[in-house]
Amino acid sequence: MRIAIAGFGTVGQGFAEILHKRSELLEKLNGGPVKITAVFDSKSFAIDEKGLDPLALVKRKKETGKVGADLLKSGVDVLGGAAYDVLVEVTPTDVKTGGEGLKHMEHALKHGKDVITVNKGPLALKFKELKSTAEKNGSIMRFEGSVGGAMPLINLCSENLKGEKVRSIRGIFNGTCNFILSRMDNGMPFEQALKEAQQLGYAEADPTYDIEGIDTACKVVILANSVFKRNVRLSDVPITGITSVSAEAIALAEEQDMVIRLVGEVSDTVAEVSPRLVPKGHPLSISGTLNTAQIMTDLAGPITVSGKGAGRIETASAVLSDLIAIISIRR
Amino acid sequence: MRIAIAGFGTVGQGFAEILHKRSELLEKLNGGPVKITAVFDSKSFAIDEKGLDPLALVKRKKETGKVGADLLKSGVDVLGGAAYDVLVEVTPTDVKTGGEGLKHMEHALKHGKDVITVNKGPLALKFKELKSTAEKNGSIMRFEGSVGGAMPLINLCSENLKGEKVRSIRGIFNGTCNFILSRMDNGMPFEQALKEAQQLGYAEADPTYDIEGIDTACKVVILANSVFKRNVRLSDVPITGITSVSAEAIALAEEQDMVIRLVGEVSDTVAEVSPRLVPKGHPLSISGTLNTAQIMTDLAGPITVSGKGAGRIETASAVLSDLIAIISIRR
Repeated sequence: MRIAIAGFGTVGQGFAEILHKRSELLEKLNGGPVKITAVFDSKSFAIDEKGLDPLALVKRKKETGKVGADLLKSGVDVLGGAAYDVLVEVTPTDVKTGGEGLKHMEHALKHGKDVITVNKGPLALKFKELKSTAEKNGSIMRFEGSVGGAMPLINLCSENLKGEKVRSIRGIFNGTCNFILSRMDNGMPFEQALKEAQQLGYAEADPTYDIEGIDTACKVVILANSVFKRNVRLSDVPITGITSVSAEAIALAEEQDMVIRLVGEVSDTVAEVSPRLVPKGHPLSISGTLNTAQIMTDLAGPITVSGKGAGRIETASAVLSDLIAIISIRR
Repeated sequence: MRIAIAGFGTVGQGFAEILHKRSELLEKLNGGPVKITAVFDSKSFAIDEKGLDPLALVKRKKETGKVGADLLKSGVDVLGGAAYDVLVEVTPTDVKTGGEGLKHMEHALKHGKDVITVNKGPLALKFKELKSTAEKNGSIMRFEGSVGGAMPLINLCSENLKGEKVRSIRGIFNGTCNFILSRMDNGMPFEQALKEAQQLGYAEADPTYDIEGIDTACKVVILANSVFKRNVRLSDVPITGITSVSAEAIALAEEQDMVIRLVGEVSDTVAEVSPRLVPKGHPLSISGTLNTAQIMTDLAGPITVSGKGAGRIETASAVLSDLIAIISIRR
């Protein structure tokens, strides 16, 4: 099995390390080697049909800032010229246009390649189109890591819980917001909590995408389209972020033994993001940067999962789980 | 696909109802009908190669106390004379000898049939032997519902998390004990909490199996053998139940913002059951009858799941998830 990696930031590098760490397991499951035959970042690329050494790629990226020796013209060009079976698309998310990631995914799916991604932009903007291109060309598209990072959710719903009617999913899908709100529980003002999140590396210098609820909304869209088979776009989702959550509101919640959390909710009829009152002790009252989801099913009842929503190796581990699933389907 | 059901108590009846409810889905996944061709309880049996009506079976059981019109000599005889592909083994658990359930499973596996069970006795006593019989005869043995009922755990670890090294699993695997300990959190004495659990139907008239930790230990054994590929028997597990948990101990825990919970822990080297101090807010500090498990993995980090550990339809839903998995493997 030949893998092309698009994007070589934290998740791409984490995934390369995992490919190295799990090479024996993957070779055993695949009945043959699993190798990287193409990789590119925003500036450079490398191609080798015999397979590129994952750790050497990580080393070069760290030392030179570039994954390859060759200058990148376009990712699509690299994919067009490379021999690969599975594209791992982990370029930065662009929720306005889908960005380069969308082009990479479209190109791969059109050419009958399987795609694994954690890139929310293309999925939130063009889920239906991508899914239909995949089906038309016999490609598999998987995206476990796009919602909740290492927390198992999408494949859990579509595989383990395939016999269930999932009535709704409500979750904490953004660790940055949850960290800030958890700090505010203890009386810290929003601005200070945000600053602390930035200092700890949980929040970007421009935190808009997280704190305005857009990241959570992307995940809601992905769940609506995948688990609930709906046709929802990001622009369909009513979004309220956490910038309007006041210290007064949190103090009032506290008086009722409640906390305020940024909840994404999806069902057959709902797809929305808003700060909500959550009773302490409820699964959604979780503190810190963890992600959590409460899945309401008709037979099994409520099922709750939680895990790390971000992180280099953690998010890449979700790519690994998708890769193993593809290997077992393709064998 | 032809199903034989051994045992027609709450889970057997719940599963029959689910087979009726999900007949369309199952037929679609299977590419053909999924029918009950044999069923028996402790007194009676029914066989029909054309398929037995699930709801009629439930009705007869409710009205007459028997699932079939014919007198049962032995379950193994029924299985020997029936045409079936998958045995759903849901007779009562016997942790001393494995009981009739063990005989049914052995018979089915020896004859190349697939087996789904929630029956902890045979698994806790003879896991390795059953697994090896299954492998020798090309049979599939699945048992998601045997640990944590509707909470996804075993298949989550062996499939979704196949790429992870699971370092340990710590969990609350007995809803009865957790209900009692949750009541004791609020100052209720053990005896009174037990009585309340019995009145609400959470605890048996003879609660030994639950409160002495034996049920939790069975689950620990199943996890040790399946997820950790060990060869552990029930007699290998150090077990402390909750009868020795005093009101004083709980008050002391409360002073440190902790609770006491009956925790089952499994790893490559540990398999034990004991009451433990758990900080409030920790995933294992869960209250009420829910089950929960914290799975420590090397790449994805900690993953927590919780769900209903018991219940007619809930436990049967785990059988459904195993059935769907078998259908997808056998197609």
